[in-house]
Amino acid sequence: MRSVSVVGIGQTPVGEHWERPLKDLAGDAALAAIGDAGVDRIDGVFVGNMLSPTLNRQMHLGALVADWIGLRGVEAVKIESACGSGGSAVRAAWLAVVSGEMDIALVVGVEKMTDTPGHDTTAALATAADADEEADMGVSFVALNALLMRRYMHEHGWRHEDFAPFSINAHANAVANPWARLREAVTAADYARARMISDPINLLDASPIGDGAAALVLAADGTKGVPGTPRVTASAVATDSIAVHSRHDPLWLAAAEASAAAAYAQAGVGPGDIDVFELHDAFSIMAALSLEACGFCERGRGPRLGLDGAIAVGGSIPIATRGGLKARGHPVGATGVYQIVEVVQQLRGEAGATQVQGARIGMAQNIGGSGATVVTHIVQAA
Amino acid sequence: MRSVSVVGIGQTPVGEHWERPLKDLAGDAALAAIGDAGVDRIDGVFVGNMLSPTLNRQMHLGALVADWIGLRGVEAVKIESACGSGGSAVRAAWLAVVSGEMDIALVVGVEKMTDTPGHDTTAALATAADADEEADMGVSFVALNALLMRRYMHEHGWRHEDFAPFSINAHANAVANPWARLREAVTAADYARARMISDPINLLDASPIGDGAAALVLAADGTKGVPGTPRVTASAVATDSIAVHSRHDPLWLAAAEASAAAAYAQAGVGPGDIDVFELHDAFSIMAALSLEACGFCERGRGPRLGLDGAIAVGGSIPIATRGGLKARGHPVGATGVYQIVEVVQQLRGEAGATQVQGARIGMAQNIGGSGATVVTHIVQAA
Repeated sequence: MRSVSVVGIGQTPVGEHWERPLKDLAGDAALAAIGDAGVDRIDGVFVGNMLSPTLNRQMHLGALVADWIGLRGVEAVKIESACGSGGSAVRAAWLAVVSGEMDIALVVGVEKMTDTPGHDTTAALATAADADEEADMGVSFVALNALLMRRYMHEHGWRHEDFAPFSINAHANAVANPWARLREAVTAADYARARMISDPINLLDASPIGDGAAALVLAADGTKGVPGTPRVTASAVATDSIAVHSRHDPLWLAAAEASAAAAYAQAGVGPGDIDVFELHDAFSIMAALSLEACGFCERGRGPRLGLDGAIAVGGSIPIATRGGLKARGHPVGATGVYQIVEVVQQLRGEAGATQVQGARIGMAQNIGGSGATVVTHIVQAA
Repeated sequence: MRSVSVVGIGQTPVGEHWERPLKDLAGDAALAAIGDAGVDRIDGVFVGNMLSPTLNRQMHLGALVADWIGLRGVEAVKIESACGSGGSAVRAAWLAVVSGEMDIALVVGVEKMTDTPGHDTTAALATAADADEEADMGVSFVALNALLMRRYMHEHGWRHEDFAPFSINAHANAVANPWARLREAVTAADYARARMISDPINLLDASPIGDGAAALVLAADGTKGVPGTPRVTASAVATDSIAVHSRHDPLWLAAAEASAAAAYAQAGVGPGDIDVFELHDAFSIMAALSLEACGFCERGRGPRLGLDGAIAVGGSIPIATRGGLKARGHPVGATGVYQIVEVVQQLRGEAGATQVQGARIGMAQNIGGSGATVVTHIVQAA
């Protein structure tokens, strides 16, 4: 199997880009990544997106984006796994390069969620849940996560305030990230008095939606004119039932565990080797559950890593180092690509004030639904 | 590069399955294909679908279908390239097997287009066009194809009745296909008096929508317990601008030409070697343009192949041998998978009354938009 590296990265700021159509955002990130890579050809385009069929009345983003950025004719496709679409697009591109069918592939994650008159974003997001068994019953994504968080607090004896460090850490890290949506620090007092959304999830437990695009150029090692680092040493996907109530244990992300275990095995590393972990903190409860499923602490002990400072830059397992979903923002189908862009920034030493010193091994984990599709990548510096 | 075979096929009849939810249709086809293959494991699930985000309010079909058919946990993803989604899903699965990451992959194309109260199917289909430059101007897909057909008739001097053989051939072949939606023969007189939809496209120029699912099991040759035939000897994708008016030549399917040329090169064959060609006859004009782009006749001569009987079973290039999109039906995201199921039926000698005698090399070409994404596969008997 050929080895594959991330040879270029690009991104737009996450925000409310009312003046920019979806393809414009995708194009900015894509051209930035191609420029960063310095390559003069692209063999295939893989677009990760979730909501454009509903919010933007536009499908067929593979061909659309390829044409828009001047690559008319090239192979192109759109990949969707709800909020795991970006990671799934990276996975598809990685498979294409590993297969030998392509030497250089472009991945673009893009989402345009604001300025979509006549559309209900919460209802659109609910299409990631099971239509027959969840969404049609009126359960939104924040409500599903609220049920999980409430049960988790009950089972493991945590108070709401014990989750505050996830939010505080993410916001603190976003301040130094020019591409982040919420570049403002928050305090424990802010967290305590934040507006309730779906009890116990308040505004500071939830990631903000947004418009944005992120892009990567992946290349097979040995391809003429491209560097061979940082290398993607693991790429793994696992699934679970979409409906949360169908799981044996709703408080354990089985697909995250399986996906991370496969990734660790591929890369020949373990949780103790990971220098930076960009996880899927769509809600603070998801940050806790992900840390547990990936082996960074025991079951039910996720909040402890926050309270002890382990998740901070300088801690034992820095997460959300550029703001995470919580503060960089969560343009859903783009998020999985932003995560890997950020891991690469860390491995290159380009993370500014939140640089993890000596970062050599980074992991990104992107989740679709409440743990139904989980995509894990490990990227390593030379 | 490993060679890959189609070791199992399955399909549901195309029709109006009001009593069956989308996942049920997908499950029937998937389990039929797995049963046909006789395999006891699946390493990954690739779902092709276009409209479920809008018509069925359900995204995230990869995880949903995997769980529904008893494969909870396995890698899964949804692929979308408008009406080319099915072919693109086959391509993604093929890449995964060729890469060595998987030995056995399941592809499911599924679409549920009827019994979708409150949704406008024509508007949903228009999301395959360019939202900014086509759909928002009110142009539907049938209207775009009508513009192409009118111009083609003008440029090349054909009369409307010259396109009749495409429809008559497809309907004649569908009679013997138990999975076809329109199992009724039509005559030149029927064609001449069919209701006009978008001049010059009448009801018998247009394929019917429908509900349905088709599935394939792809396996790497040498995988324990699976046969190594028929083999997928070519898999190729090319794109063009989505907006028809942006093309240098709207009457030439440049992406079909490029995709077919790449496929011919991979398989080491040419148009003269193809025994059966399942093409994308969403409208009769598309059948003519596809035949030309793939090298079966000169530019502007597509209707001649119909008038001369070349497209019939027993002719030099049999098309729509199981009814094609026109009469088997066009459940859009499933169509590209149905096409390959039908090619395999021909190669296995299981096509009944429309069996192409001695068929050894089959080609399937699936198109998204009006030629914007074109996926070509060649499958060969041992």
